[in-house]
Amino acid sequence: MCCGGRCCVSMTQCFFDYSTSKVLVIRSKSVGTLNRFCQAVVLAYIIGYVCVLKKGYQDTDTVISSVTTKVKGIALTNTSDLGLRIWDVADYVIPPQEENSFFVLTNLNITPNQTQTRCAENPGPGSTCTSGRDCKRGFHDSRQNGVQTGRCIQFSVTEKTCEVLAWCPLEKGNDPPDPPLLAEAMNFTVLIKNSIRYPKFNFNKRNILPHVNSSYLSQCVFNRTTDPDCPIFRLGDIASEAGEDFQTMAVHGGVMGVQILWDCNLDMPESWCMPTYTFRRLDNKDPDNNVAPGYNIRFAKYYKNGGKESRNLVKGYGIRFEIMVFGKAGKFNIVPTLLNIGAGLALLGLVNVVCDWIVLTFMRNRQQYSQEKYAYVGDFGLLSNEVTEPSGTGFVEDD
Amino acid sequence: MCCGGRCCVSMTQCFFDYSTSKVLVIRSKSVGTLNRFCQAVVLAYIIGYVCVLKKGYQDTDTVISSVTTKVKGIALTNTSDLGLRIWDVADYVIPPQEENSFFVLTNLNITPNQTQTRCAENPGPGSTCTSGRDCKRGFHDSRQNGVQTGRCIQFSVTEKTCEVLAWCPLEKGNDPPDPPLLAEAMNFTVLIKNSIRYPKFNFNKRNILPHVNSSYLSQCVFNRTTDPDCPIFRLGDIASEAGEDFQTMAVHGGVMGVQILWDCNLDMPESWCMPTYTFRRLDNKDPDNNVAPGYNIRFAKYYKNGGKESRNLVKGYGIRFEIMVFGKAGKFNIVPTLLNIGAGLALLGLVNVVCDWIVLTFMRNRQQYSQEKYAYVGDFGLLSNEVTEPSGTGFVEDD
Amino acid sequence: MCCGGRCCVSMTQCFFDYSTSKVLVIRSKSVGTLNRFCQAVVLAYIIGYVCVLKKGYQDTDTVISSVTTKVKGIALTNTSDLGLRIWDVADYVIPPQEENSFFVLTNLNITPNQTQTRCAENPGPGSTCTSGRDCKRGFHDSRQNGVQTGRCIQFSVTEKTCEVLAWCPLEKGNDPPDPPLLAEAMNFTVLIKNSIRYPKFNFNKRNILPHVNSSYLSQCVFNRTTDPDCPIFRLGDIASEAGEDFQTMAVHGGVMGVQILWDCNLDMPESWCMPTYTFRRLDNKDPDNNVAPGYNIRFAKYYKNGGKESRNLVKGYGIRFEIMVFGKAGKFNIVPTLLNIGAGLALLGLVNVVCDWIVLTFMRNRQQYSQEKYAYVGDFGLLSNEVTEPSGTGFVEDD
Repeated sequence: MCCGGRCCVSMTQCFFDYSTSKVLVIRSKSVGTLNRFCQAVVLAYIIGYVCVLKKGYQDTDTVISSVTTKVKGIALTNTSDLGLRIWDVADYVIPPQEENSFFVLTNLNITPNQTQTRCAENPGPGSTCTSGRDCKRGFHDSRQNGVQTGRCIQFSVTEKTCEVLAWCPLEKGNDPPDPPLLAEAMNFTVLIKNSIRYPKFNFNKRNILPHVNSSYLSQCVFNRTTDPDCPIFRLGDIASEAGEDFQTMAVHGGVMGVQILWDCNLDMPESWCMPTYTFRRLDNKDPDNNVAPGYNIRFAKYYKNGGKESRNLVKGYGIRFEIMVFGKAGKFNIVPTLLNIGAGLALLGLVNVVCDWIVLTFMRNRQQYSQEKYAYVGDFGLLSNEVTEPSGTGFVEDD
Repeated sequence: MCCGGRCCVSMTQCFFDYSTSKVLVIRSKSVGTLNRFCQAVVLAYIIGYVCVLKKGYQDTDTVISSVTTKVKGIALTNTSDLGLRIWDVADYVIPPQEENSFFVLTNLNITPNQTQTRCAENPGPGSTCTSGRDCKRGFHDSRQNGVQTGRCIQFSVTEKTCEVLAWCPLEKGNDPPDPPLLAEAMNFTVLIKNSIRYPKFNFNKRNILPHVNSSYLSQCVFNRTTDPDCPIFRLGDIASEAGEDFQTMAVHGGVMGVQILWDCNLDMPESWCMPTYTFRRLDNKDPDNNVAPGYNIRFAKYYKNGGKESRNLVKGYGIRFEIMVFGKAGKFNIVPTLLNIGAGLALLGLVNVVCDWIVLTFMRNRQQYSQEKYAYVGDFGLLSNEVTEPSGTGFVEDD
Repeated sequence: MCCGGRCCVSMTQCFFDYSTSKVLVIRSKSVGTLNRFCQAVVLAYIIGYVCVLKKGYQDTDTVISSVTTKVKGIALTNTSDLGLRIWDVADYVIPPQEENSFFVLTNLNITPNQTQTRCAENPGPGSTCTSGRDCKRGFHDSRQNGVQTGRCIQFSVTEKTCEVLAWCPLEKGNDPPDPPLLAEAMNFTVLIKNSIRYPKFNFNKRNILPHVNSSYLSQCVFNRTTDPDCPIFRLGDIASEAGEDFQTMAVHGGVMGVQILWDCNLDMPESWCMPTYTFRRLDNKDPDNNVAPGYNIRFAKYYKNGGKESRNLVKGYGIRFEIMVFGKAGKFNIVPTLLNIGAGLALLGLVNVVCDWIVLTFMRNRQQYSQEKYAYVGDFGLLSNEVTEPSGTGFVEDD
């Protein structure tokens, strides 16, 4: 943007020069229409899509969130091992707290009163034996429950297996009970407290909305249609909303995602910024590729009676609920606006390229247009258009 | 960018054509000044804002971090249930480890020696009764502590409630002790070890800075002014820096955010890349919307004496500290630089549009300018400016 | 983009005007070559870098993932405290589950049978004493194990220290055993189940690939060359792949990162979207700045015998494995494509600026070119080029 070869001459004079490109106006309906049409398309794209849909005029920020959960409910089980037993939160939520997720025990295989001693390994490759020669002292691998002592003993009346040093009695490789022991977990409720923050806009909100009061909170349960703002969820509802059958899922366990979406347009009133809840099963359950299904954890309760340590081993099947908080907030900001305008203008430039090409290639009087548009100068001075006009293109009329 | 209608003729010749737009230089102080001014504004924006402030010339990467924490300190409590008792880390940090967060027990309601048996439900809707007819055998809901047996028994001398099968004695719905039992938690300290990584730039650093040695680390405590580099924090200080009163917070519990910010300009020396710590309360505490305040967890310690299982149920109020690590690193990169220049140039284009409009609409000799700027060609050959000059606009002088 | 000063006259006519800039074609090999070369460079950059490398034509989304882990393996230890003892998952994974990470105990200092009583504090500043006068009743700080009772008693035959109320016997400040007790942890295996989702493209996948069947899964172990798709990892392999010696790391513990990268080009067949595993040590271990090394947690098992509560305090050194799931998926989308084209065109504009400058400053016939390119108009009518030609620049020939 300088006044060309003359810069050297006088900067000050040059400074006040305003350079604007010379323009050839082609006054032709067809071209004009084409031109305007192209421009309209581009403008429509810029305004309609970039500005309106993508909110290109907004600066955005992603959410920061903090989640705490509180599960409520009790279940009654009746098993040979444990007899009649009540399960409450302290029993079935393991560990008592996690960040952004909680685990609810729904089914279990319990092996009570294990002690560190010797017993017969469960039958299987590497453990079934006929004599001590089949057992290697000190041998163990990840598929075994203990360290072999080298002896071969009766596992049952029919079978002999290697003796192992382990927590005995060993856990049996049983399938989990079906129906699940804690089938009532379906009716447990969880209160999810979620506070979010958009640091860039210093905006804070929580999913317990201002109009929610304690009395409502004490008895409401989330329902997409009737109670969309209640932050208390029935586990069974979460599963069914995700299209899962809770009871089936409870048998082998699984992982559920509780997605909280906070999409906020902060150019609008704050009260419009609301969480929306969606539920999805996160672990795989497609039947034709269902290796290693479900979700379970092993944990033990340790006791000591008379110096001797014993434990109850629990293989706990359950559902882990992961609370995922998403969200983007947008607020008008001049920078992205200008950026998008800039990019838009560049696209408007495209229109001229396209039109020029059409005009100078297809229009009837393209020759004439191009003569007006282009001036030619060679290394040895100006060339008249006529000169550069290729002979033999056979123009009848040539002005 | 081709030489128009002649492309077809000779590509090679065309190839060496350089097309540059013809320019009309308007040598007028007013226009010139306007033009330069607009350009200056745009340039100022591009350079000042995009480049300097937003560092538009840098490629950025977000932080990956790993956090481990270690809490230290002991507290002495004296309660009727437990008598004189010392609390150390293994007692008050539950669970012993979490990812990016830790929970410190500050207050608790303990219900010792619970066993699975029958007792009177706490009074309340659905439990108070006058005779067995008011109690449904096997009935329970999330507000009850157990499963009703169907009998109606004395809860106290005055009240009768339904008998339930539950962990008895039941937890009393008491408010948490105030002042909190573990008020001394205020003086606990936590060592936060944080290693970060910017994968794109293969840059690693940790919050234990190179100049920090073991002896200093063994006795320092973070203080924004005197010890800003010490990664050991006093819980009380964290709360007060966040503008909270630790003792008040400790009663019902809460969630504190420990934010570690790693904003690094990697074009600068590495030693300039330092963590900054800020503290914020994450859970809601605004008085006029304070439903479901604080944070507490229920957990139990299980015992077995003579085959009979019993447990101590603890409703633990406490503060969960969530360590959030943020950060963006920037380093010069040609791509975003060019991108910003491109957008900037597009904006410079705007200037001409604006100036043209002003010149051709408001300037005294706009007629003259536009005659120079525009040439007109219709479908039927070149139109002289005069021809297109509308009659009746009443120009006195017309060159 | 309007027909200048004439807008006012007739909008309709104006509407059909198509304005295209007048162009001066300089037919010169040198300039032409330069021009084409610059354009080539810019185009190469746009196409090669932005489109091919950076896939600028794609819309991108970041991964959402859910991870569950299952550790297998047993270890045998033989210590004076515990005698011969088997460790299985329930013993060495603490807590039984975490989100996106798991902790494996590799080494420990155990302090069995602690009870709440009085004993002599470990020697050290603030605890060693000669008489009761050196001990403050009720005094304690974060470096002490209990609350001083005010008495000064024998710690050993030689030493006297203040008596404290604490969990006695106190934990000894011993170094962790070397070699580590659970050295066999090296051979433990972990099954990492990871399901990912790209919400924007509604694309789900898991790291147990379709072609993996149960029988393979039951016996495979990850190996970068032979079994790259097996999601079962040997802890020892993870360490060695990260360039660490497991046994050394196991002594003081540490933090390992298991990075799962899901970079997917969804314009390609889905089966091409595969996870890649990399392993990195996250905690610092550089020798010259190795303060507070390793990773350990304190936890306790609580027992009650005859009403009296006791506990086994464990200072557990171990390795925490953090599973970090990264990834970006790209799929063709028109918006980013246009955005990049726009920015690219703006850059192409640069080329003309550069060439103009060169042409009008260095070329032999710059004068001539500029005369053709520029027309001058002042406030008082058109200025012929000659007029503005500065006298004294001494041009011999002037056309």
